[in-house]
Amino acid sequence: MKTPAIVLNMKMYDQSVGPTGLELSKICDDVAKETGAPIGIAPPLPDLALTVKEVDIPVFGQHVDPNSPGGCTGHITPESLKASGAVGTLVNHSERRLLMADVEADVARCKALGLDTIVCTNNLAVSKAAALFEPTFVAVEPPELIGGDISVTSADPGIVSDTANALKELAPNVKVLTGAGVKNGKDVAMAIELGTDGVLLASGVVKAADPRAVLLDLVSGL
Amino acid sequence: MKTPAIVLNMKMYDQSVGPTGLELSKICDDVAKETGAPIGIAPPLPDLALTVKEVDIPVFGQHVDPNSPGGCTGHITPESLKASGAVGTLVNHSERRLLMADVEADVARCKALGLDTIVCTNNLAVSKAAALFEPTFVAVEPPELIGGDISVTSADPGIVSDTANALKELAPNVKVLTGAGVKNGKDVAMAIELGTDGVLLASGVVKAADPRAVLLDLVSGL
Amino acid sequence: MKTPAIVLNMKMYDQSVGPTGLELSKICDDVAKETGAPIGIAPPLPDLALTVKEVDIPVFGQHVDPNSPGGCTGHITPESLKASGAVGTLVNHSERRLLMADVEADVARCKALGLDTIVCTNNLAVSKAAALFEPTFVAVEPPELIGGDISVTSADPGIVSDTANALKELAPNVKVLTGAGVKNGKDVAMAIELGTDGVLLASGVVKAADPRAVLLDLVSGL
Amino acid sequence: MKTPAIVLNMKMYDQSVGPTGLELSKICDDVAKETGAPIGIAPPLPDLALTVKEVDIPVFGQHVDPNSPGGCTGHITPESLKASGAVGTLVNHSERRLLMADVEADVARCKALGLDTIVCTNNLAVSKAAALFEPTFVAVEPPELIGGDISVTSADPGIVSDTANALKELAPNVKVLTGAGVKNGKDVAMAIELGTDGVLLASGVVKAADPRAVLLDLVSGL
Repeated sequence: MKTPAIVLNMKMYDQSVGPTGLELSKICDDVAKETGAPIGIAPPLPDLALTVKEVDIPVFGQHVDPNSPGGCTGHITPESLKASGAVGTLVNHSERRLLMADVEADVARCKALGLDTIVCTNNLAVSKAAALFEPTFVAVEPPELIGGDISVTSADPGIVSDTANALKELAPNVKVLTGAGVKNGKDVAMAIELGTDGVLLASGVVKAADPRAVLLDLVSGL
Repeated sequence: MKTPAIVLNMKMYDQSVGPTGLELSKICDDVAKETGAPIGIAPPLPDLALTVKEVDIPVFGQHVDPNSPGGCTGHITPESLKASGAVGTLVNHSERRLLMADVEADVARCKALGLDTIVCTNNLAVSKAAALFEPTFVAVEPPELIGGDISVTSADPGIVSDTANALKELAPNVKVLTGAGVKNGKDVAMAIELGTDGVLLASGVVKAADPRAVLLDLVSGL
Repeated sequence: MKTPAIVLNMKMYDQSVGPTGLELSKICDDVAKETGAPIGIAPPLPDLALTVKEVDIPVFGQHVDPNSPGGCTGHITPESLKASGAVGTLVNHSERRLLMADVEADVARCKALGLDTIVCTNNLAVSKAAALFEPTFVAVEPPELIGGDISVTSADPGIVSDTANALKELAPNVKVLTGAGVKNGKDVAMAIELGTDGVLLASGVVKAADPRAVLLDLVSGL
Repeated sequence: MKTPAIVLNMKMYDQSVGPTGLELSKICDDVAKETGAPIGIAPPLPDLALTVKEVDIPVFGQHVDPNSPGGCTGHITPESLKASGAVGTLVNHSERRLLMADVEADVARCKALGLDTIVCTNNLAVSKAAALFEPTFVAVEPPELIGGDISVTSADPGIVSDTANALKELAPNVKVLTGAGVKNGKDVAMAIELGTDGVLLASGVVKAADPRAVLLDLVSGL
């Protein structure tokens, strides 16, 4: 994925699943094509392979387990994501936290398969630790701001710039996303100004009355 | 699903995922059409919606979480399974055990949406307890026999008939599956003779050199 | 334990841990001796063996894992509880839910060692299922009432009497406790009138300005 | 704790629990007093406070949760460990892995209370990440060697020295332990020679016919 980028975690809202969610994915695809902006999406896992068939933008898993192929019913292996056409995956989202050893294993296993990883973190200390695993992205999202009305770039700009600066020094190849509460182009522009490579957001688009308009506004901030 | 039935848990083998797994799903679909046998499949979760598009047989989730629609990144909601076209789901597979309260909530939530549930259990006591939740099926599989070479119907026929008999009395509307180690039509016939409504199996088909031949053999035991 | 009984889950409040908690345990011991009432306590796990040394009333674990003796660092085995002098343990408390297979295994493992089990449940369906494991007690506590100001016996008497009645039929050897929000002797009397064998409570005593007075009041309801 | 040190994780063996375990703790106490060697112990959690009363050496928890004091039945809070007299705790042992966010929170919460933390890790990448949380110790133990007959210092000396060297640079205040398979004074001496500050071991002492003799031998390697 080119950066700065917008990654939409579609989560599991009514608007995100099944045919309704697929329409939303196609809107993202359209906006990306019209604007040339790098937009990625993480649809509900059951819809992943079908979404890949229907859009041209990068599709991510919402979660991955470090299990090897075999008898691991109900888990999501890196091999399965790759075979289904995903280009990468969220790891350790605040709504799906992982064991520390599994975060590291997920990143290493995905990297070996050429899958991008977006490791979500809750504060500066965890962001720095996760960056040492050398994922593609670290996405810092203070849990108390996720799903809320105030963008992290306004509510806590310090954590965004501190993370960006710390990672630049500690792991310069790791890109930084942020996004809790991000809703519009101004928030995106601020995220980039604070030193990040883009945003990871969810409800601001998924629950919008007009997701297309919100996406166009977000893209304007790139 | 009509019973007696064969449910294939495709698990996460190399043969199960992506386009390769989709071929396997189509073989199941073909065999079901040719023979009229009730065959259901539980493909890898990322391939679920796409598989639904490509086959006519019933498609199940490998796992479901009791979360409500909303911010539950990486989880599998009943609503998501339904929107993706699944007719039901495995619950509490031995490789994906659930909290007791969540097994009950999963069954109740799925039932409210018209989704079938196949609750997997490890012994007679847990089978009886799970049956009180009134799932569509209880699938008893002694964990030590799963993925092995000896069918539960030979290795431990007592647990199969005891479960079938106990549930007939305790929860007569709940159907019973079994399956650990089931590999051929003789095993299927024995499972039915022991009082069950069919089999839940995995590696015997997925890892077979000729899955079509194995499926035809399995169907012969119905 | 003789019933009807009062079991105090001390949880992990400031008032529950270390020497302060030990004082609270001794108050329970005193009240039990003065009144002859059956009072049991579940102190913080790190204080369990020491509490056993200091009081004569029955001491319970707050949690147990089904692991066998050996390399299971940080887990609580039934053997460890027994060796430390506990007479039994809470299982599957709403703040420490367990896998369904582990609830069953916990009860069976404890029973084999002569340890009493108090399996906590969240609704009628789970209470009935848990009762089939034949624990010593099922303690039904609607999670939304735990730690609150209104006793379950007032807020939802139906779940208490329904559970008591259902278990009388389904598993007559299993005793029933209730307790979310229980605070005084009137609540205890009502719990017994609704068909239970006593109460399991926590904050009403632990956070009381005068725990001794509250305990004496509770005992008056037996 | 003075270093180089020997920390005995007593785990949950038959020899570790109840009065038998307390005898083992006293043997450790005796050997520490006789030799002046810094020996710490992590007894079964239910025996923690009682062990503190009976020995003078440092006592550690086997596990800690990041929960705050309150309604967290069955969990182990830092406050509870401190109130019971522990000087610190193991965190994230391979038999009790934790969420990445909880490892960080555990270390921060314990530090604020003056409790030492020994964060267990499975490889170099996780060791470095954990070191950024600034625990007192990182204890690197390749899981496949734990409980085995070959000391990590022989089987994989590279991981020991690599970890020691990497942490010296990355987090010079964090001390390093190792220990999987450590059994005798020669192993201890080698661990120190490879750059660590001591060993964390378990079965080599707990399951020994003569733990006192083994401890004396271990101490000879300091």
